[in-house]
Amino acid sequence: MIVLDVKDLYEKSHIGKEVMLEGWIRNHRKQKEFGFIDFNDGTYFKSVQIVYAKDLENFSEITKFRVGSAVRITGEVIKSLGKNQDFEIKLKTIILEGDCPEDYPIQPKRHSREFLREVGYLRPRTNLFNATFRVRSLVAMAIHTYFQERGYVYLHSPIITGSDAEGAGDMFKVTTLDLEKVPKTKDNVVDYSKDFFHKEASLTVSGQLQGEAFALAYKRVYTFGPTFRAENSNTKTHASEFWMIEPEVAFCDLDRLMDIEEDVLKYIIHYVLKHAKVEIEFFDKFVEPGLIDKLKSVLDKTAVRISHKEAIDILLNSKLKFENIPDYYEDLAKEHEKYLTEEYFKSPVFITDWPKDIKAFYMRSNEDGETVAAVDLLVPGAGELMGGSQREERLDKLLQRMKEMNVSAEELDWYVNLRKYGGCKHSGFGIGFERLLIYITGVENIRDVIPFPRTPGNCEF
Amino acid sequence: MIVLDVKDLYEKSHIGKEVMLEGWIRNHRKQKEFGFIDFNDGTYFKSVQIVYAKDLENFSEITKFRVGSAVRITGEVIKSLGKNQDFEIKLKTIILEGDCPEDYPIQPKRHSREFLREVGYLRPRTNLFNATFRVRSLVAMAIHTYFQERGYVYLHSPIITGSDAEGAGDMFKVTTLDLEKVPKTKDNVVDYSKDFFHKEASLTVSGQLQGEAFALAYKRVYTFGPTFRAENSNTKTHASEFWMIEPEVAFCDLDRLMDIEEDVLKYIIHYVLKHAKVEIEFFDKFVEPGLIDKLKSVLDKTAVRISHKEAIDILLNSKLKFENIPDYYEDLAKEHEKYLTEEYFKSPVFITDWPKDIKAFYMRSNEDGETVAAVDLLVPGAGELMGGSQREERLDKLLQRMKEMNVSAEELDWYVNLRKYGGCKHSGFGIGFERLLIYITGVENIRDVIPFPRTPGNCEF
Repeated sequence: MIVLDVKDLYEKSHIGKEVMLEGWIRNHRKQKEFGFIDFNDGTYFKSVQIVYAKDLENFSEITKFRVGSAVRITGEVIKSLGKNQDFEIKLKTIILEGDCPEDYPIQPKRHSREFLREVGYLRPRTNLFNATFRVRSLVAMAIHTYFQERGYVYLHSPIITGSDAEGAGDMFKVTTLDLEKVPKTKDNVVDYSKDFFHKEASLTVSGQLQGEAFALAYKRVYTFGPTFRAENSNTKTHASEFWMIEPEVAFCDLDRLMDIEEDVLKYIIHYVLKHAKVEIEFFDKFVEPGLIDKLKSVLDKTAVRISHKEAIDILLNSKLKFENIPDYYEDLAKEHEKYLTEEYFKSPVFITDWPKDIKAFYMRSNEDGETVAAVDLLVPGAGELMGGSQREERLDKLLQRMKEMNVSAEELDWYVNLRKYGGCKHSGFGIGFERLLIYITGVENIRDVIPFPRTPGNCEF
Repeated sequence: MIVLDVKDLYEKSHIGKEVMLEGWIRNHRKQKEFGFIDFNDGTYFKSVQIVYAKDLENFSEITKFRVGSAVRITGEVIKSLGKNQDFEIKLKTIILEGDCPEDYPIQPKRHSREFLREVGYLRPRTNLFNATFRVRSLVAMAIHTYFQERGYVYLHSPIITGSDAEGAGDMFKVTTLDLEKVPKTKDNVVDYSKDFFHKEASLTVSGQLQGEAFALAYKRVYTFGPTFRAENSNTKTHASEFWMIEPEVAFCDLDRLMDIEEDVLKYIIHYVLKHAKVEIEFFDKFVEPGLIDKLKSVLDKTAVRISHKEAIDILLNSKLKFENIPDYYEDLAKEHEKYLTEEYFKSPVFITDWPKDIKAFYMRSNEDGETVAAVDLLVPGAGELMGGSQREERLDKLLQRMKEMNVSAEELDWYVNLRKYGGCKHSGFGIGFERLLIYITGVENIRDVIPFPRTPGNCEF
């Protein structure tokens, strides 16, 4: 008798062997003379069928085992006569380890995603979420493997920050003050000297600035950690807590940065197609028909590289009536991204050299004085997947831009100093991990690719 | 001409080749006829020596390049005549990419760790911190590789939590309320319905409870993420923000859990000795003499397994005068751990079956009614490195323990439900990532193994 996982059964043939498995009953069909259990232990997307017959002495007791129950079984792996599987297990013994009541929420039928969010702690037991969160785990590993194999140092950038100048979006406050009785100074403002860090603190919105400090020591670094936005927006693509990957590379310009971005994306797609084959097939069949073709087409193509100005030219020349009129000084709208990636180029597209006023203070000014060396990577079916820039390494230009954009150079003196102490050309980009997962799985709501999502008014489990 | 990293030069011989490198000047010694630059680009712990002679036309200009400056160099790799290295680079051209002033804080001399914390954004440019944070990155990768290769699913457990019942320690509050003017209800208490999540929210102290939910879907899972303690303690081993790894395994009892813990530890040590050889040699030489022997001795031994009661027996029988008198109902003190691991067993020691009143509500009650199926792994030189337990899977016993320990079963209904819906025997443990790093590097202050540490009153960079 060998103790196995379901995964082992699919990896190589065990026909003729006696095996022991522990897991859960996903489905249970009983007939007069036979019973069939869909058995899943979570180690593999697919279940294994267990058949038992009336010759078992506790036959009638077994027929009462309910869906959701935890069981330990022994039996022989045999060739299956059914056409849905190559093998099945002929049951010898079964022990009920944990019962499950009639009203168990996860029944073998279709549940709405809204309902499954309400029982979020149980939803990884369904096919959809089991596949989604396993792919989430594998994509995380793909990312670590990619960067580590290429000598990048993994940086845990800080989660709690004393700076509110990181750039993007509203921040959550972090405090140990008693909110029932907030201490005040004699000028009647909050006395943060009594708070835990003796000053205001927040949850990070980005690890980039710290990433730059480390890139100027290690040449190549990446962060991979949670980031936060206290935005009160309830859309399919916004969460208050999400994970980001932020690679940063010294002596790297914008062209080289695009090479890296494209290489990372292709690597991840390769990795997922290889390591999550059954899950991706499931998504392709039930979630986003055409998903596999979409992913494979990225592998075959070289991404187009055009400037923001060229993009606007193309949009204006298309003579299409967009809801948002393309503008040389504005961001691209979803419909613009869609046209460029899905209709005009039918390929991933890098858009470079954005108007400076819609981009962050740390992006490098171009010679024209109007644009910055920023780049967004747009992909068919998902729009913006990565955003990066060459950083402003020239001290005077950085200070000027900070002043213009009202970012305190005093508060970020250490960041400014990176330009004084052996500064150099450097670039970096960010990948929104969940946006990447939405793209790879076809699961379109960010709440469904995060194990326990946090959104306005929602902080369950 | 080939473009290389310093790491490439150490990986295989490039003698006779013309190379281009970009990096920083770590040290610069000038003589009348020659100059010597210690050049480091961060891709490898060791620097490479660059020699130049008066025959270069800009010789006198080069001699003025200061420590800390970023440069791009070309030159020929030649056999070194010096005895400190096998090769060096004979300089052909050098371009100054980023200057560095005279008063640059990181000079080629010994700096105190306290001073280096003040310039934390620059300290990865020193040998000690360069080695430390590279090892941090490698240990993280070792952990991911170990668990992923064994089919564990990586779970991003939530950072913001609405529950204050996770168990360990004081929590930071997370809020978007205006602290200058906290909204109150008509009963004059804080009106959390106006807060971002419409209720109180905090930073997580552990992902274990969510890990259990996922283990009952995937069998084997692990978390690896930041956790927080709002404790006002300023010691060498306390930080307010630190990373934890929390594996959780279904159908696993305490014995099997100890097998896993020991296997993980040995794997990580193997990995580090292989992938961070020069860094570990540096630590062994300059930080903790005997470090390599300490680590290797763990590989050779099987950890001892004794109960808490047996440990107390041994301590009492030792006839030693401990400052803290060993007690069958109390935790072990540092001196007790030291005696057991360093003197009595000279080996890692698992201590099992702890008195229930000093352990958490979710640990499985033993038959004796006095102890729980908890286990701490103690190692020579560092004390407790991992802590775990078999979880209470019996609904009635869990509820009873929650009541006794004043943990709201209502607030954690989903966690309680895991015992109703196909619950099963399961176990898990936690590794404090920084404690592990302290053990592996010999760097003894937690502030020095975290890139940007957060402690009471300190939230810089």
